[in-house]
Amino acid sequence: MRDVFVRGVGMSGFRKQPDQGPEDLTWCAVTEALEDGGIRRSALESAFVGNVYLGMGAGQRVLKGVGISGIPIMNVENACSSGSTAFHLAWLAVAAGQHDNALALGVEQLSVLGGGGIPLSTEDPEIASGLTMPGLYAMRARRHMEEFGTTVEQLAKISVKNHRNGSSNPKAQYQRAITLADVLSSRPIADPLKLYDCCPTGDGAAAAVVTALKPDGPCIRVRASVVLSGSWRNDARDMTTSELSMRAARLAYEQAAVGPDDIDVAEVHDAFTIGELMYYEALGFCEIGAGGALVDDGATEISGRIPVNASGGLLSKGHPLGATGIAQIVEIADQLRGRSGARQVGGARVGLTHCTGGGVAGFDHIACSIHVLERV
Amino acid sequence: MRDVFVRGVGMSGFRKQPDQGPEDLTWCAVTEALEDGGIRRSALESAFVGNVYLGMGAGQRVLKGVGISGIPIMNVENACSSGSTAFHLAWLAVAAGQHDNALALGVEQLSVLGGGGIPLSTEDPEIASGLTMPGLYAMRARRHMEEFGTTVEQLAKISVKNHRNGSSNPKAQYQRAITLADVLSSRPIADPLKLYDCCPTGDGAAAAVVTALKPDGPCIRVRASVVLSGSWRNDARDMTTSELSMRAARLAYEQAAVGPDDIDVAEVHDAFTIGELMYYEALGFCEIGAGGALVDDGATEISGRIPVNASGGLLSKGHPLGATGIAQIVEIADQLRGRSGARQVGGARVGLTHCTGGGVAGFDHIACSIHVLERV
Repeated sequence: MRDVFVRGVGMSGFRKQPDQGPEDLTWCAVTEALEDGGIRRSALESAFVGNVYLGMGAGQRVLKGVGISGIPIMNVENACSSGSTAFHLAWLAVAAGQHDNALALGVEQLSVLGGGGIPLSTEDPEIASGLTMPGLYAMRARRHMEEFGTTVEQLAKISVKNHRNGSSNPKAQYQRAITLADVLSSRPIADPLKLYDCCPTGDGAAAAVVTALKPDGPCIRVRASVVLSGSWRNDARDMTTSELSMRAARLAYEQAAVGPDDIDVAEVHDAFTIGELMYYEALGFCEIGAGGALVDDGATEISGRIPVNASGGLLSKGHPLGATGIAQIVEIADQLRGRSGARQVGGARVGLTHCTGGGVAGFDHIACSIHVLERV
Repeated sequence: MRDVFVRGVGMSGFRKQPDQGPEDLTWCAVTEALEDGGIRRSALESAFVGNVYLGMGAGQRVLKGVGISGIPIMNVENACSSGSTAFHLAWLAVAAGQHDNALALGVEQLSVLGGGGIPLSTEDPEIASGLTMPGLYAMRARRHMEEFGTTVEQLAKISVKNHRNGSSNPKAQYQRAITLADVLSSRPIADPLKLYDCCPTGDGAAAAVVTALKPDGPCIRVRASVVLSGSWRNDARDMTTSELSMRAARLAYEQAAVGPDDIDVAEVHDAFTIGELMYYEALGFCEIGAGGALVDDGATEISGRIPVNASGGLLSKGHPLGATGIAQIVEIADQLRGRSGARQVGGARVGLTHCTGGGVAGFDHIACSIHVLERV
């Protein structure tokens, strides 16, 4: 398959913005991506649109508002990995030689759903008994603490880091640094997780144009693009490690011909602080069980050995499901081009994005998607 | 890109079956496809699942029930073309060399939705004023009658043909031949369309395994796989012709290096009788405006020059949205292998499937997908 490059990226601000339509959010993201790539919308040959809750024909509807129509548009859903799955398919269409330029778009508007949150069915016995996403991650946290001596302070430090990073990201939902005391004294959600251990819901869109035509000058090449779904054979065996993320990471490192030590900057699925910590381990940034120590060492700070979620991550930048995976690509593309301002990771050349989705109802893991990008 | 073959196909019965879960319907379709292809589920490397209304992670949920998990599973939505879009993406993954064996699945359960029908928003001004799918196709019918002298009898003959065909399809929702008088005296839905001019809603699943490894003996090769979406620039210009289907047909014929005269058997999107008639013209089976005469000539009967919807089509076989596009593939694969029993088209070697989706709300056309299959 052919080399694929990220030609341009863009995103709307992430926040609760029920006054904006998904078309408006899309307009911001796509216009910025086209401008960034110096490419006209008429050059796009296909579009893949990641979305969970906008209903039938969402991609066609939102892209029409940007004047993009007539090309193949395909709507993709994979829970929190919807956007990264859309990016994967755009990559595939270009890598396969089917199209030279493809658009990946992710868009979501959670603030207009009932109660401003994600609708869950209380008919599902696990949901009804409290095994929602916070409940599930809380169990993982409790078990990780038990097995490896991880502390609530270590979890809280992840939130402090990500909010500090988000405070210098003008697109982030929360642009305010918080203290360890703020996290620890925030209201309990599902013990041991507190409010600031959990990402918010919100609205936003993110877009990336991928191309087979190597742009002039320094540019971003996709070295690996992996989407996997969970296995009922393995997923529930060990609550403290993510078998799905580990498998996806193995595949991605193999495809990219790099190892975890080669990653200069990463965006990791921190829907909950314990998630980021578990995924450090799954991605090989440290040994299994050593996530807490990695935090204490400051290794995942912007100035650290392996900076994670310089954008603010889901915890601070926000998590409009369909948009999240592509927003990670936006951040890494900006980091690798030295465009991240106050939150720039020095000299970053290889970056990784990690997105996962699902988890409730029988510990099913709907998807995990990992991308490795490189400045060339 | 590589040659891609259809290795096995299968489908559940189509009907209103609220007592069956989508998992049960999927089990029928996938088990049959694997058995047909003589391939084990463990050989599948990815799965693309077309669905509109089953919600987040639908593919992962229904495939888990068949014991398929751990591979990349991607949920795809493109209205009535959801299934054919899933087939297109499975084709792409194999054609690109990403995977050797991929599963395309379509599944839908409309009978359990509110009122047993498709939920439409009355907040949409066009829906609120009656421009639902029947209303839209009725306008097209009325205009086609005005422009080209098409008659309600010609439309009714399409329904009679498809119900006769469906009566010998044990998977069809309606397995009963009807008369011209039955159609013409059925209750009005949106003038000039009557009940039997409209397809039913229902439940079902259909599956196809595609492969890069040429099966032994006579097999089915995918000669063209096209998905397009409508253009706001063109779609509303002429109510009697489908610009989207014409564009998709041009691309498909070019990709397959065949013309309409080379097609021995076709499954065409007959959600309404006028649809089938308009798409005869868009697909080049006759000149623009000559659809009515084609019907009178009996050219699209099983014994005719270009048999259309030998399966019974959406009108008689049924239309569980996500499943429909893949059920068309099932029928053509069976026809090309001479397995269609009483409804077999003699000596069919090249077949075509045509699926389209959307249409309401500003005459948007969400998607059109055309596949050309050949026995090799």
